[in-house]
Amino acid sequence: MSRHKYTVGVDFGTESGRAVLVEVGSGKEIADSVYVYRNGVIDEALPVPGKPVRLEPDWALQDPEDYIRTFQRTVPALLRQTGVDPENVIGVGIDFTACTMLPTQGDGTPLCALPEFRRNPHAWVKLWKHHAAQPEADKINATARALSEPWLSRYGGKISSEWFFAKTLQILEEAPEIYSAADRLIEAADWVVWQLCGVETRNSCTAGYKAMWSKRDGFPADAFFAALDPRFEHVVDEEMSRRIVPIGSRAGGLSERAAAWTGLLPGTAVAVANVDAHVSVPAATVIEPGTMVIIMGTSNCHILLGDREETVEGMCGVVEDGVVPGLFGFEAGQSAVGDIFGWFAETSVPPELHERARKLGTSVHQVLEEEAAQLRPGESGLLALDWWNGNRSVLVDADLRGLLVGMTLATTAPEIYRALIEATAFGTRVIIDAFEHAGVPVERIVACGGLPDRNQLLMQIYADVTGREFAVAASSQTPALGSAMFGAVAAGAARGGHDSIVDASKRMAHLRPETYRPVAAHRAVYDRLYPEYVRLHDLFGRGSDNVMRTLKRIQREA
Amino acid sequence: MSRHKYTVGVDFGTESGRAVLVEVGSGKEIADSVYVYRNGVIDEALPVPGKPVRLEPDWALQDPEDYIRTFQRTVPALLRQTGVDPENVIGVGIDFTACTMLPTQGDGTPLCALPEFRRNPHAWVKLWKHHAAQPEADKINATARALSEPWLSRYGGKISSEWFFAKTLQILEEAPEIYSAADRLIEAADWVVWQLCGVETRNSCTAGYKAMWSKRDGFPADAFFAALDPRFEHVVDEEMSRRIVPIGSRAGGLSERAAAWTGLLPGTAVAVANVDAHVSVPAATVIEPGTMVIIMGTSNCHILLGDREETVEGMCGVVEDGVVPGLFGFEAGQSAVGDIFGWFAETSVPPELHERARKLGTSVHQVLEEEAAQLRPGESGLLALDWWNGNRSVLVDADLRGLLVGMTLATTAPEIYRALIEATAFGTRVIIDAFEHAGVPVERIVACGGLPDRNQLLMQIYADVTGREFAVAASSQTPALGSAMFGAVAAGAARGGHDSIVDASKRMAHLRPETYRPVAAHRAVYDRLYPEYVRLHDLFGRGSDNVMRTLKRIQREA
Repeated sequence: MSRHKYTVGVDFGTESGRAVLVEVGSGKEIADSVYVYRNGVIDEALPVPGKPVRLEPDWALQDPEDYIRTFQRTVPALLRQTGVDPENVIGVGIDFTACTMLPTQGDGTPLCALPEFRRNPHAWVKLWKHHAAQPEADKINATARALSEPWLSRYGGKISSEWFFAKTLQILEEAPEIYSAADRLIEAADWVVWQLCGVETRNSCTAGYKAMWSKRDGFPADAFFAALDPRFEHVVDEEMSRRIVPIGSRAGGLSERAAAWTGLLPGTAVAVANVDAHVSVPAATVIEPGTMVIIMGTSNCHILLGDREETVEGMCGVVEDGVVPGLFGFEAGQSAVGDIFGWFAETSVPPELHERARKLGTSVHQVLEEEAAQLRPGESGLLALDWWNGNRSVLVDADLRGLLVGMTLATTAPEIYRALIEATAFGTRVIIDAFEHAGVPVERIVACGGLPDRNQLLMQIYADVTGREFAVAASSQTPALGSAMFGAVAAGAARGGHDSIVDASKRMAHLRPETYRPVAAHRAVYDRLYPEYVRLHDLFGRGSDNVMRTLKRIQREA
Repeated sequence: MSRHKYTVGVDFGTESGRAVLVEVGSGKEIADSVYVYRNGVIDEALPVPGKPVRLEPDWALQDPEDYIRTFQRTVPALLRQTGVDPENVIGVGIDFTACTMLPTQGDGTPLCALPEFRRNPHAWVKLWKHHAAQPEADKINATARALSEPWLSRYGGKISSEWFFAKTLQILEEAPEIYSAADRLIEAADWVVWQLCGVETRNSCTAGYKAMWSKRDGFPADAFFAALDPRFEHVVDEEMSRRIVPIGSRAGGLSERAAAWTGLLPGTAVAVANVDAHVSVPAATVIEPGTMVIIMGTSNCHILLGDREETVEGMCGVVEDGVVPGLFGFEAGQSAVGDIFGWFAETSVPPELHERARKLGTSVHQVLEEEAAQLRPGESGLLALDWWNGNRSVLVDADLRGLLVGMTLATTAPEIYRALIEATAFGTRVIIDAFEHAGVPVERIVACGGLPDRNQLLMQIYADVTGREFAVAASSQTPALGSAMFGAVAAGAARGGHDSIVDASKRMAHLRPETYRPVAAHRAVYDRLYPEYVRLHDLFGRGSDNVMRTLKRIQREA
């Protein structure tokens, strides 16, 4: 038997699942394998034979079989590639997008797998970006405000249409037959763990951030659910569970069936599920209060640990045991970051820059970045509000829209690209200010996710705009690494793993040697631009000017 | 001798000169000919041999020889093409960009033609878009305000760096040797007429709109010029003339030299010079109060006749005899219109739309227009402020910048293109409102210029946004036609021409049969969007929010 022990982390993303095999002592990622979901994001029609079942706008579903196929395709590939003996694979952890949820029978069978429900969209997995439950979210928010529900302040005063009870209430209201037929309503993250070890668990991270649960107060009272709909009164006891398991726990051992899928040994430790952003925090070396982790990708997610609960304006949530057991995990977010750059590159860049990218064998993003890097802060005369997908933190307003000001006839695409990057950095600075204003200190910042990996200019701008040093996680797949770390914790030190996520993080998580430090001259200019950003932010975001909302209203009626 | 009489109109544009041969009875344009200036817009270095003489930013010069070459190349071509006997060509009229001016000797020789001054940029023609005299314009405005100069209100409270005394004061301050050597400082329009007939005239249109002259009060007092600079006190008497000739007058007869350039007969009537926008008004059939002519091209120029002087917010000027003798011509303007669409097409349109244009053998503008025409008003959720080149009317603020609000991740290039068109239409509606608010009625609108010719969607949007019917001039080259009309007036009815521009307009100017009428449903939406435009306009343009100015300041220091 080898000295080395390994764990598998599986990160279930929007389009694919990624598995990594990680060496437990060093955190070295030995191999990875990706499975692109056969049915991907289901947003036009159900993947069923016969007459098409079309979906309404804003719907986004998935096929739970794709999650099982992820295990079947990726884990055997890891073992094959590396020759690692399954004996030495001591644990499995998974993370998921959230809230991504589904209705099942009591034994875990998804309702969409049953012939009688297969053509009913509500029987399928509702993906995080299923946005068709906005009326239900509105109802939840209005009812919570009317009843002065104490939990509302933990979520920045407003819950999202993406969250658990908005989605389940939509099932109840639009497909009561599915609601009745469902024995369980469950996060896909927890369902996947259930499939692995045959034990139904409910993790503290999704329960806390997506289902309004807290360690001290549990779920909202039945009376609140009854106020939403009398049939909804006992949703927790009838279709969920009040037993919420802290992340970092062992859910169970790998079942015979799951062992056959993966090639791992039956009984291998399986960790309680986690969320992709939150599991990245210890994988980015952060296990203590005071350091903000920013997961930078299509959107930004800001997670900060604290030792007590505070109310921070516009945060997505604060959950005890939500990120690292024993600490409060604060989450904030920017609804679109990389998505804005992607939108710009796709819709707003002239042919010559695409052509240059082609000739250089690089991406148009790379060409834009190189041009934008030649500009000095303030040189373009442009300023943007980064609300192409609304604003989550700190304004919690999905109706807000993008704004760009300062264009002249000499304005260029790289100038606008830089202004968009700067706008997202200003948005992050607003979030940092909100935390500090609420008494939650932000002493250090560690970035992870897809953007820091590729975009040096962006990282330097973030450092310059916030006036803070940015470290970067060594791993470019922190969710999968974090899941593998939780797999090691589920196994425990006695079996060659670790006894806590703190121990695992110290051994398995690393930072890159280089950091991004603010350049004083840049910072001085951004310190002059930031008040202008804040003024526009408050003008358009806090109601003194309602033009964005008016435009949206006129648009809806057009 | 033929029954038909003809005149030649020559329109001196920014990049080229265009001559048309027009039949005097019907206004039919028999032939046209274009000369692209050899030295074009001189904005990098003087076209002189030897060590390069580089120009500062914001400079824009021209070579007066290009104007002579225009006559030499185009008029003979017209005669050659048509076989028209010069006997039957009874008059010549010209129009020019303005203020485009130059220093000359007493005999009209441009200083830049003299070896001793050829390498001095101040000896050349300063083109209308020479913007390097902003400090001088600032000084003129500040001094005028301090001295409560009565003429300031005729120019919307602020004169432009493009105008005559800003440019001449720049010569005095930066090149006093040129100022001293110049016997005459003259509009290029008047210089060209001087070259044609050997008689120096000064037309009422450029004097009124560009040199603060009025029929009742003449030029500003010498004391005002002295307050700017003691050496400037007698600029009018020393280097200009107080004898201003109303447009519609005969300047003289074609000289032998000019007859040789053109192939026309010596003594052919030459009209007093005009300005390209203003000469378009009678060419667009408008000779009476109440109908606004909008010359729509890279920028918009709005001209309205009235029977008395009124103060209209932000107008460029009001001049008695400035457009049609006996009436007051009000001028307003939008600094960038087609220029914004051109900027967008060049910098912000993705390759697939360019590719589609290429495949269809059309322009990217055409593709954008077709896509934008599919959208309903309000559907994009976008709104823009059309200030890519500052705002002339009604805010008179060159430091203002563009703004676009309402972007989402689904926003497309055609949606933005349409929002930009709409923004310029809203800008025109603000100008119409300002006229009506000042008691100058706008009963009808006639459009002319390059844009109405090509862009049906734009015309429909203007009709929908303003709630008014838009007629369109039949001629697509109204400046040259208008100049030919003034040539016919210079000849007079007795020689086969016309006795007044009113007569000429009635015979020679025509409208297209089709007009653009507002669609009630579109208008209803734009009536909801317009208050939002006005609110942003006032917020960013009237000083309640100074972000654009702050950005410009930071930009200058960057």
